[in-house]
Amino acid sequence: MCQIFTKNYTKMSNKTKRFILPEEEIPRYWYNIQADMVNKPLPPIHPATKQPLKAEDLFPIFPEECCRQEMNQTDQWIEIPEEVRDMYKYYRSTPLVRAYGLEKALGTPAHIYFKNESVSPMGSHKLNSALPQAYYAKQEGTTNITTETGAGQWGAALSYAARLFGLEAAVYQVKISYEQKPYRRSIMQTFGAQVTPSPSMSTRAGKDILTRDPFHQGSLGTAISEAIELAMMTPNCKYTLGSVLNHVGLHQTIIGLEAEKQMAMAGEYPDMVIGCFGGGSNFSGIAFPFMRHTILEGKQTRYIAAEPDSCPKLTRGKFEYDFGDESGLTPLLPMYTLGHNFRPANIHAGGLRYHGAGVIISQLLKDKMMEAVDIPQLETFQAGTLFARAEGIIPAPESSHAIAATIREAKKCIETGEEKVILFNLSGHGLIDMAAYDQYIAGNLQNYRVTDDDLNKSLADADALNK
Amino acid sequence: MCQIFTKNYTKMSNKTKRFILPEEEIPRYWYNIQADMVNKPLPPIHPATKQPLKAEDLFPIFPEECCRQEMNQTDQWIEIPEEVRDMYKYYRSTPLVRAYGLEKALGTPAHIYFKNESVSPMGSHKLNSALPQAYYAKQEGTTNITTETGAGQWGAALSYAARLFGLEAAVYQVKISYEQKPYRRSIMQTFGAQVTPSPSMSTRAGKDILTRDPFHQGSLGTAISEAIELAMMTPNCKYTLGSVLNHVGLHQTIIGLEAEKQMAMAGEYPDMVIGCFGGGSNFSGIAFPFMRHTILEGKQTRYIAAEPDSCPKLTRGKFEYDFGDESGLTPLLPMYTLGHNFRPANIHAGGLRYHGAGVIISQLLKDKMMEAVDIPQLETFQAGTLFARAEGIIPAPESSHAIAATIREAKKCIETGEEKVILFNLSGHGLIDMAAYDQYIAGNLQNYRVTDDDLNKSLADADALNK
Repeated sequence: MCQIFTKNYTKMSNKTKRFILPEEEIPRYWYNIQADMVNKPLPPIHPATKQPLKAEDLFPIFPEECCRQEMNQTDQWIEIPEEVRDMYKYYRSTPLVRAYGLEKALGTPAHIYFKNESVSPMGSHKLNSALPQAYYAKQEGTTNITTETGAGQWGAALSYAARLFGLEAAVYQVKISYEQKPYRRSIMQTFGAQVTPSPSMSTRAGKDILTRDPFHQGSLGTAISEAIELAMMTPNCKYTLGSVLNHVGLHQTIIGLEAEKQMAMAGEYPDMVIGCFGGGSNFSGIAFPFMRHTILEGKQTRYIAAEPDSCPKLTRGKFEYDFGDESGLTPLLPMYTLGHNFRPANIHAGGLRYHGAGVIISQLLKDKMMEAVDIPQLETFQAGTLFARAEGIIPAPESSHAIAATIREAKKCIETGEEKVILFNLSGHGLIDMAAYDQYIAGNLQNYRVTDDDLNKSLADADALNK
Repeated sequence: MCQIFTKNYTKMSNKTKRFILPEEEIPRYWYNIQADMVNKPLPPIHPATKQPLKAEDLFPIFPEECCRQEMNQTDQWIEIPEEVRDMYKYYRSTPLVRAYGLEKALGTPAHIYFKNESVSPMGSHKLNSALPQAYYAKQEGTTNITTETGAGQWGAALSYAARLFGLEAAVYQVKISYEQKPYRRSIMQTFGAQVTPSPSMSTRAGKDILTRDPFHQGSLGTAISEAIELAMMTPNCKYTLGSVLNHVGLHQTIIGLEAEKQMAMAGEYPDMVIGCFGGGSNFSGIAFPFMRHTILEGKQTRYIAAEPDSCPKLTRGKFEYDFGDESGLTPLLPMYTLGHNFRPANIHAGGLRYHGAGVIISQLLKDKMMEAVDIPQLETFQAGTLFARAEGIIPAPESSHAIAATIREAKKCIETGEEKVILFNLSGHGLIDMAAYDQYIAGNLQNYRVTDDDLNKSLADADALNK
C-alpha cells in the first residue's frame, strides 16, 4: 500500500510538496478569536466568593501580560513582541505539506495537507507559547517559573524558553509519562530545568494526593496543582501553562495564520480543519484563524477536534464550571469537563490526558461552531504507522489522533468521489515515543483498550470525589 | 552565557536566520569530485588476485548503478533520478542557518553557519543516499536489501527508503548501539525492517567473530561482514552501505550544493567547512562541492574533518590497503586505517566508530587538500550542550564533533578578532541519544576517557589480529 513507486509511478516533479513562507512573511500579530465570537466565553469565577475574576486577580499566578491577554475580548489582533518574533525565526515558518504519500496510500481523491509543527527543535508546537510566556515573565522581573507537563512536549519547550531568557524552570511531569518517556526528562534537564514526577512529596497538594492514593500515576491535574503551589510559595516566581487557557491558544494561532498564507500559495482553501485535542492549544492554533472567516464571512469549513476515547471531554463531558486542577487551586472555569478528579487511562498520548477543554473551545462547541470525534488508541497507532510509512515522519501519539480523524474523512471521499481539501495539524513527532510504537509493533496495544465500562467507572469515581 | 535577551539585546529582526531554497532550486545533479581530482583515488583490489577491480566486479554485491558511480572518474555531474528528486522534496532543501545564538554565547566575531540536516524525517543526512540506493536496487529488479548500521541513523533511513520503494530490508546493527539506542531499532521496525544485533549467530561471519570473542560488542566492521554475507547468500538481494564508499559521498553532495546556493543568498562564502567524520559521508557531502572551487579556481578554503580521539583514523591511521569489514569479505581499499580489526571504545557517537576513511577522503588528506582534528568525547558533549542551549537543537553525538571543532575555530577568532566565515554540517539531531546526554548531565562522562595507553593497546591488538 505504501509502495509509492510501482509501475504506475505518477510524476510529481512539477508539483510542490512543501510550502514555506519567507521569514518576512511570518505573521507579526496573533489572532484573538474572543474579539469576534458572537457568544463570548463566560468569565472564570472565584471558588470562594463566586465572583467573576478580572485580569488583575490572576496577576499573582501568571505573567501579567498573559492575564490581560486571557481576558481580552476586544482586540482582534495582538502584536507579537519583536524578541519573540526573533526566536520564532529559529524554526518558523513551519512547512505546510501536501500529503501526496498518504493520499496515494489511501487511494483517496481528497487533497490532504498538514502543517508540520514537528520540525520545531523541541519536536512540537509547544514552543510557540513557551517563548512569549517566558519572555513576558522575564520582562516583568520574574526570576523563576514553574509548570506542569504530560508527555513532556510542553515541559521541554518551556525549559528551553526559560534558558533562553535567563529564567530558572521547575517542571512537574505526570508520573506515568516521567516513567514512559525518560528522554523527554533528559531533554528538559539538558536545558537546565529541574524535573519532578507528580504527584510528589515536594508540595502540600502532592502529599495530599499521595496520602489518598499512594499509587496515583499522576495526571495533568495533579501536576498543575503542584506547579501552582510551588509558584505561589516561591518569591519572584510565576506559573505557566501549556494549554487550556485563552492566551495559550492565542499564541498558537501563529500556526493557522501561517497555514492560511501557505494554503493560498497552494491555491486551495480547507473544507475541513482537524487537530488533536488535549486542552486545546494546537487545535486552537490551527483552527481559529480559519474560523474567523466562518464567523465574519460565513465560510463553510468544518472544524474537527480529535480526542482519545479514554478521555472524551468534548464528546462525553458536561458543560459546567469546574476546577482546572486536581486539588482545586485554580479558578472555576466554564468548560466541557469529565470532572477535575477524573483519572484517564494510561494511554500513550500523555498530552491528551486532561479532564477539561479550554473555555473558548467549550463555548464554540456549545455553539456548534465545531465538532469533536473520539478515537480508540489502537486506531491512532494504525493511523500513525500508515502515515509514517507514507510520509516518512513518525508522528507523536497525540498527533496521530488528528491523522486518524483525517483518514476517516479521506475514506469518506473515496466513497463519494469528492476532492475535499483537508488540513490537519501535525502537532509533533513521535521520536521520543518509540516505546509506544514498540508495544504496537509487538501487538500489545490490542490488549489495551478502554471499554465503556472502564470509562463509566472512571466518570463515576470522579463524580464521587467531587462530592 | 546563553541568556540571549539581556539588557544589551541586539535586534536581529532585519537579519535572516534561516536560508531555504525554493523546491525548483533543489539541485538536479550530484557532484562527482573524482572527475576533478588531480590525483585520482587508487583502485580497490581483489584480495586474492591482487588485481584492480572494475565496476562489473562489484555487481554481485551492490546495485549496478552504484558500482558505476563508484568507479566513475570522468563525469563531473551525475543526474539525480526524477523519482529520487521527488522524494528529496519530502524534506529538502534543508535550511542553512546562521548560528546567531551560538556566536553570541561564544562572543566570537566569526560568522557561523550550519547546514541543518537534522530536519530530515529520519533525523540525519543519511536519507540522501538511502533513497537513491533503494531506488536503483528496485529499478534493477532486486527484492531484498541488507545493510549495517551503527547508531542507527543509516539503518533508519534505509528502512524507510526500502519501504517506500517496496523492498524488504534486513539491518545488522552494532550490538552496543542496539542496546544503547533502542528507539532507533523501533524506528527501523516501524518501517517494517528486520533488525539483528551484530555480531550475531545468523551468519558464518558473526559466528566466527563470536567464537573468537563471545563478548564482542560489535563494530561497523562486524555488521558489514554480516550484511554482505546475507546479501550474497540471498537470491535477488543486494547490499547497501551508508558511508565510506564513493557513491555514498556522491549522493551526499546534495548537502554542499544546496549550501553553496544558500551561502550566496546570505552573501558570504566559507573560509572553513567542517564536518564530523566516521567513514566520510556527511563530511564529503558538505565539503566536496566547495572543494571544487579550490581545485578548479584556487579558492582558499580550509576543510576540516572532526573525528573522535578514540577512533582517530585520519590523525593516527596509516595510509594502506585494508579491508572495509572485520572478516575481510570486502575488496581491499586504499585508505587511512587503524586496521580492520581495530575495536574502538564504546563512545556514544556510534556512527563514528569505523576503522577506516573512504578512498577519496584518504587521497585528499594525503594530498593535503583537507585537515583532520580529533576530539575527546567530553569536549563533544560540552559543545553539544552549549549548542543546544544557544540554538535550541540537541545535536547527535556524532554532529557534536563538528560543533566542537567549530567552537575551537570560533574561539581563535576571538583572539585574532577576525570575522571568519565558518560553515559546519549539523548531520543529525540527538533526540534518540538522550541516554548519552543523561550520562553527561550526571557527570559520568568525565570518568570515561580514552587514554593514549588505551588507544595504543587497541592499535596493537588490531595489528596482532591482522597478522
